[in-house]
Amino acid sequence: MPGRLEIVALPGLPQVGAGDDLAGMLLEALERAGLQLIAGDVLVLAQKIVSKAEGRLVRLADVTPTPEAEQLAADTAKDPRLVQLILDESAAVVRLRKGNPGVIVVEHRLGWIHANAGIDQSNVSEGDPGDWALLLPRDPNASAARLRAEIHERTGVLAGILINDSFGRAWRVGTCGTAIGSAGITVVEDLRGQPDMFGRTLEVTVVGRGDEIAAAASLVMGQAGEGTPAVLLRGLAAEDSPATAADLIRPRQEDLFR
Amino acid sequence: MPGRLEIVALPGLPQVGAGDDLAGMLLEALERAGLQLIAGDVLVLAQKIVSKAEGRLVRLADVTPTPEAEQLAADTAKDPRLVQLILDESAAVVRLRKGNPGVIVVEHRLGWIHANAGIDQSNVSEGDPGDWALLLPRDPNASAARLRAEIHERTGVLAGILINDSFGRAWRVGTCGTAIGSAGITVVEDLRGQPDMFGRTLEVTVVGRGDEIAAAASLVMGQAGEGTPAVLLRGLAAEDSPATAADLIRPRQEDLFR
Repeated sequence: MPGRLEIVALPGLPQVGAGDDLAGMLLEALERAGLQLIAGDVLVLAQKIVSKAEGRLVRLADVTPTPEAEQLAADTAKDPRLVQLILDESAAVVRLRKGNPGVIVVEHRLGWIHANAGIDQSNVSEGDPGDWALLLPRDPNASAARLRAEIHERTGVLAGILINDSFGRAWRVGTCGTAIGSAGITVVEDLRGQPDMFGRTLEVTVVGRGDEIAAAASLVMGQAGEGTPAVLLRGLAAEDSPATAADLIRPRQEDLFR
Repeated sequence: MPGRLEIVALPGLPQVGAGDDLAGMLLEALERAGLQLIAGDVLVLAQKIVSKAEGRLVRLADVTPTPEAEQLAADTAKDPRLVQLILDESAAVVRLRKGNPGVIVVEHRLGWIHANAGIDQSNVSEGDPGDWALLLPRDPNASAARLRAEIHERTGVLAGILINDSFGRAWRVGTCGTAIGSAGITVVEDLRGQPDMFGRTLEVTVVGRGDEIAAAASLVMGQAGEGTPAVLLRGLAAEDSPATAADLIRPRQEDLFR
């Protein structure tokens, strides 16, 4: 357990476009900040820049909504083409609140329970942003693993990589940074069986450490205009785990709230 | 939005008992760590030390379970006296999973939806820990405000105070540090109406910043034996808000999952 943690937003990252060399951009941003990557460091990236680099921008004009999407869109005062993308990205609609604006909570095809399948329309284009939508990365754990390998190849350093997104919560106000992809990081810390301070065995303490890392990074990521979508965390216990952020998804059979 | 955040666990905090001067203990721990409190700093305290200082330890031998508690306890393989305390602290049972161990998810009398009304049996006593249970503080926002005032009086510095606890999540594995009390901190950041990078107005971005702070602090708090239940966060934007952690509780009429 570390006693001191530094969280640094990397300044001056340029706008990211499809096909960009994200690993190279991150290393340049680190250099500009006067930071040299060391083993145990964790780089947290906002979903948005990973998605953009992977070409996940979709032009709404290219989407033809089904009647199901049209109906859902009417119920929730959303663009039917956006709703079609939400359905395409989802395994199931979990909750619907009709209204203006309504809410569509889905199970994403990758297992997350969240609003709108994580599809974003802010900060996605220099044209009319209403014309575009940004989907989540196709496989964020694979994206994280690839970045980890590329950074390792160029620097010799095995850093942890985590991709976060802002998730709403069932019973809390506001979003919280949440891990949707990771490589090299112990995202679930299982303290069961360890003794507490008085020698009593802990029974139920499993910590969603990956989400705590995602939330901590979110504190220094700008949400609006002056975004800094890449953050360095230094001081976490050494990171070299085979776990991925998929381990943070509660299995359906343990879900009491679906 | 700050670009750099430091998170430091305060070492050497002694065991806390009922009636202890928590503000004094925190200031001594800061001094030992060579840290001088400055305006804008946030101190995060684990629920456990606040509860202990406020005398919220209950001896199970003093609890007489009702038939309702006996039945719930049989269903979930828990101590009936512990279940009685859970019911006493709760407004309603929200979900029940029978089994061994079972799960009792409640709405706490203060509005949180969580397991076991936040009642803890680890790290609570040097005797047989099975004999004791630790309830959450009676009014954690009031506890935070009191600590803020006491620290202000002794140092002249208005620090933010946040009390965190480990909450499970409906669809995620593992607990995450969550804000149950605060004073002086902007716990909900409302970015709606602000322009994004391309001038588009953000529509739905409300950030649960208090919970992100709670999660970040949890990363450096020991969970098991070597606990460091007090943490300093330095580098957040200046904190001087009238908000409290109650603002992070989703109103019942907006709850889609109860």
